[in-house]
Amino acid sequence: MNNIRWLIPPQGSKSTNCDDEIVVSSRIRLARNFSELPFEMKMKPKDAQRLLGLVRSIVDANDGGEFIIMKRLSLLERESLLECHLISPDFLKADRQSGLYVNHAGNLSVMINEEDHLRIQCLSYGLAFARLSTLAFELEERIGNEVQYAFHDQYGYITSCPTNIGTGMRASVLLHLPGLVFTNEVEKVLKGAVQLGMAVRGIYGEGSEIKGSMFQISNQHTLGLKEEDIMETIVKLTHMIMDIEKKARDVIFEKARHEFEDKIFRSIAVLRSARIISTDEVLNLLSAVRFGIGVGVIKDIGLDVVNEILLVSRPANIQLYFNEVFEEHERDIRRADYIRQRLGEKTANSRQ
Amino acid sequence: MNNIRWLIPPQGSKSTNCDDEIVVSSRIRLARNFSELPFEMKMKPKDAQRLLGLVRSIVDANDGGEFIIMKRLSLLERESLLECHLISPDFLKADRQSGLYVNHAGNLSVMINEEDHLRIQCLSYGLAFARLSTLAFELEERIGNEVQYAFHDQYGYITSCPTNIGTGMRASVLLHLPGLVFTNEVEKVLKGAVQLGMAVRGIYGEGSEIKGSMFQISNQHTLGLKEEDIMETIVKLTHMIMDIEKKARDVIFEKARHEFEDKIFRSIAVLRSARIISTDEVLNLLSAVRFGIGVGVIKDIGLDVVNEILLVSRPANIQLYFNEVFEEHERDIRRADYIRQRLGEKTANSRQ
Repeated sequence: MNNIRWLIPPQGSKSTNCDDEIVVSSRIRLARNFSELPFEMKMKPKDAQRLLGLVRSIVDANDGGEFIIMKRLSLLERESLLECHLISPDFLKADRQSGLYVNHAGNLSVMINEEDHLRIQCLSYGLAFARLSTLAFELEERIGNEVQYAFHDQYGYITSCPTNIGTGMRASVLLHLPGLVFTNEVEKVLKGAVQLGMAVRGIYGEGSEIKGSMFQISNQHTLGLKEEDIMETIVKLTHMIMDIEKKARDVIFEKARHEFEDKIFRSIAVLRSARIISTDEVLNLLSAVRFGIGVGVIKDIGLDVVNEILLVSRPANIQLYFNEVFEEHERDIRRADYIRQRLGEKTANSRQ
Repeated sequence: MNNIRWLIPPQGSKSTNCDDEIVVSSRIRLARNFSELPFEMKMKPKDAQRLLGLVRSIVDANDGGEFIIMKRLSLLERESLLECHLISPDFLKADRQSGLYVNHAGNLSVMINEEDHLRIQCLSYGLAFARLSTLAFELEERIGNEVQYAFHDQYGYITSCPTNIGTGMRASVLLHLPGLVFTNEVEKVLKGAVQLGMAVRGIYGEGSEIKGSMFQISNQHTLGLKEEDIMETIVKLTHMIMDIEKKARDVIFEKARHEFEDKIFRSIAVLRSARIISTDEVLNLLSAVRFGIGVGVIKDIGLDVVNEILLVSRPANIQLYFNEVFEEHERDIRRADYIRQRLGEKTANSRQ
């Protein structure tokens, strides 16, 4: 597996646009099943084999991406794919016949034989539903032209879990809201989102903790809705939350400029000088740096670098980055090495 | 009052000797009373006036130092003198006729009409009892040639408080023991010192907390001992503790090199980038920097700079340094400004 490829942030990430600082990333996921094959629960090995072969023959003609038999990957490689948001936690287990297609740009993946026969997923930094849905539906159509999807005239696409029936679509945004966290408004705002039919989660999806002031918002419902409406609701809600976040920032930056500059400059300094650093600390420090870029205090670091460090710093990714296997302690040391190198160390005091 | 003068570290402080990193400073204090004047408790205003006049006429001929009537100083100036270890907490109160002489170098002071008629005190960075006692006894003799000290043939010098009777001498060292703090041996070592007749205190003397891994050790007893023996005991004990401290450092630096380098480099980075910083945080960060200089990890910062920052950062000193009066919050901001300027800021990200 070409481990470095997944770690390069996808196109459009070089922007240091303030909006892209708040909307970390967006994602679209389509669940599909084939009518001619039994659903996951009833699937036999030969069905799974047929499913893999079917999809492979179609996606191989796509754009020079990579088709991966999950069983052939090490746990480390699978963990890395999870950290890159290319597979689900379910896909960590290597106990079934499952496959993965990732396109060349690394912004489209298809999980084959997850909970559903297909999970087509597109992701990008910033708010990019239009581009992502084009990409996802293009592939969805190409596959649908070859094999018939399980579809019910009244309900829509049939899925393994009833929560996905209908459009089979989940659209999500990952928002960075340090202003609302600081002013204690974030809970109120996110409750509003839930009332609008949204699910709110931490940076690593379902069941993950809230860390680094990052919140994932996605549609709760898929039944009885149009795909465009799902995306439009999230886009509108996102713009609304961005406005409130920006207002919160203006207020706190006026009232507590020194406190925030202090936090921002200390965070960069620690990233640039630490010799041991955990993933969680990196997440929190990068949140402050991200904020510093957003409010214009930091000018010499781009969002692309922040996004890259966020991704490469994860436990499995950092090992694939160095192409070595490390215990936790060594990992914290090598992570610090990588970050100092990436951000340009500013002290001349190293022993090395 | 020439406020800046006290803040310049006294001679000999430019050393980056590892021993001077562990022995932060040493001090000798002599308590003396005049037989012809009533002791503090029975003193009348005219006696106090006479005492001040007497001492002034002698010390004015000394070496171009400064004679200060304490009542004339603002509370801020008195606090600054306390922070510079030139007066005792008792001298903060301006409710009596008391005076202070400080020599030109700022390493000798005489408190007049403290608990005793005279408190002659010499202080220096590093371990310097020989030099300090010469300096102290020179002035003590000069004054003793003019006015007779209260002296008892059997006990020695008579003092206001019985704990000082005899030599009237208190010799102390301020030790920086991060190694022993880390290995949890410090309590055992200091208990040993107490058993040898020593008193152990925090960096700011009696009643002060232990901060920044700094411990003050001084002789508990003054009666029935020779001055040389008091100093010799402390010097021997100091060398013993230094050896144990160095061994502890070797062990932890071998076992936890990354952890310590991490702490050291983060500490400099924070000092060089903070926008708001408290005195206590400075004390802790400087302890790590001091350690870094001692173990040779830091090469571009001298102990003189560390000692200066330790002194100038104190709440009253920082105000006198800028010659302005600040509330606590503004003080934390200006302290950070001063430290960044003094250490040479390493980020190019400042808004200013």
